Amino acid sequence: MSRKLTTRQQLEELLDRYDTFLFDCDGVIWLGNTLVSGAKEALELLKKRGKRLIYITNNSMVSREDYTKKFARMGLSATKDEVFSSSHATATYLAKVVNFPRDKTVYYIGGSGIKHELDEAGIQSITDEATTTVDADELKLIQPNPEVGAVVFGLDLQINYRKLARAHVYLSKIPGCLFVATNTDTTLPMDNNVLPGCGSLLASLIHSVGRQPVVIGKPNKTMMDVIEAQYHIDPKRTLMVGDRIDTDIEFGANCGIDTLLVLTGVTNEAMANDPTSTNPTYYMDSIGDFSQLTVDE
Amino acid sequence: MSRKLTTRQQLEELLDRYDTFLFDCDGVIWLGNTLVSGAKEALELLKKRGKRLIYITNNSMVSREDYTKKFARMGLSATKDEVFSSSHATATYLAKVVNFPRDKTVYYIGGSGIKHELDEAGIQSITDEATTTVDADELKLIQPNPEVGAVVFGLDLQINYRKLARAHVYLSKIPGCLFVATNTDTTLPMDNNVLPGCGSLLASLIHSVGRQPVVIGKPNKTMMDVIEAQYHIDPKRTLMVGDRIDTDIEFGANCGIDTLLVLTGVTNEAMANDPTSTNPTYYMDSIGDFSQLTVDE
Repeated sequence: MSRKLTTRQQLEELLDRYDTFLFDCDGVIWLGNTLVSGAKEALELLKKRGKRLIYITNNSMVSREDYTKKFARMGLSATKDEVFSSSHATATYLAKVVNFPRDKTVYYIGGSGIKHELDEAGIQSITDEATTTVDADELKLIQPNPEVGAVVFGLDLQINYRKLARAHVYLSKIPGCLFVATNTDTTLPMDNNVLPGCGSLLASLIHSVGRQPVVIGKPNKTMMDVIEAQYHIDPKRTLMVGDRIDTDIEFGANCGIDTLLVLTGVTNEAMANDPTSTNPTYYMDSIGDFSQLTVDE
Repeated sequence: MSRKLTTRQQLEELLDRYDTFLFDCDGVIWLGNTLVSGAKEALELLKKRGKRLIYITNNSMVSREDYTKKFARMGLSATKDEVFSSSHATATYLAKVVNFPRDKTVYYIGGSGIKHELDEAGIQSITDEATTTVDADELKLIQPNPEVGAVVFGLDLQINYRKLARAHVYLSKIPGCLFVATNTDTTLPMDNNVLPGCGSLLASLIHSVGRQPVVIGKPNKTMMDVIEAQYHIDPKRTLMVGDRIDTDIEFGANCGIDTLLVLTGVTNEAMANDPTSTNPTYYMDSIGDFSQLTVDE
């Protein structure tokens, strides 16, 4: 059973118990382009109390630098080091966890965030163009490229058959070729529309090659392994804060860290205590509630 | 247990038993661009004996007219009426089986074969272009189009995110919108390459909308329902001839018609009798073996 946090004393006890706060952003700090009421003050309070804040996102289309600009637009401050995107996590996984050979190349399907983060990690990468007609004759000529050591798959608004065909051939025919996906989100919220997410596009490649990728993003523990490798945090004193049971709260459960659900996003109080799904350690109406603690500072 | 056909008497008995022969083509009549030895003579013999031949293919990128040209290139003759492609079957399914309203429109993902066959069936259709960059702003503006009554999905070498996003929105938000797939072949043989097939691309849309389509092509019985609606054949006197257990022989089993496996394609003799999979009624080395019957004509 999850414990609801409402009183100042409960919030103070929470702050005593954890040093590091992992934050999902959309649904927690902001909703699309609207800041959650009191969120700015809450984050400032946590920083004043000496807490380490890490903002994690499954969005692989952005680099960490891109994401800090979103914080600035929302009137918040976050440094590149405080941001952990699935594109950065994927590059870090390749560079530090599997020690990807630097003379090999990554073939990626995805946005510029992946390219940027692979560059920063010193990993070579290639992809295909998407804006020309795909011709059957070019497809017949696709050969396994022996320089490719991994296929990385992220959300790609310019995905096309050429890219899928090449990734398929590389994964089928290059011995030892790694298969890494940034995340498996089924859908992509875009203003008022809900569109196919990375996990849906990825389903094509999984179906054709008959092979499962290593998935980096929440709710997979790989994301946590990479965070731990970079920050040297103590999991026992780390709290995951999010609005989604199936990504954020599952992520905490998979990593053995405590979780705090906020009800400002897609989850309501009944879902927080649903006996058929994973329950958070704690839940509260909004992270804005932390701002009541600032009054006495 | 399947019965192997080798003697002239066995072949004569087969001809006595069936009036209609449904033929898979690739692996049976030709291999890519090479005719199977004796196939031309075999087909001519069957016609001389008064058999009805129907060539069926899961390839939706071609129209029936396109496919007769392939026959001509191989030195064979086939009329448009003898050809049954999954694109034609899909158009016929919409026009005759579900009586698709003629004031509604089909949104399709697929090649020109689908467009051509829908036109011939008197069904309006639209799709999207693929050769421009997909912009996030255009995606936000996608709205359910009330004129769309069905999404048809076939193999599309020009597939892109715009098409997937629009199909996703239509299937998610238009009440009663039909979801029809031409076929679910996992891979697409292309010369020496094996590339993602229609069923693999389709996996994305199934994943994102969380809904299964009506699938027309082999091994689904829908293909047979449409063939029966068009030709008024007697299933008891119809034989399916093919080289693949998972499409051709399964198709016969699903439709309650007898099957003849040939070993010129992807299946060998051991697989013909594999107790863990569907077995054909008969099998033979090659349809070329029928040509021995012509000697005495």
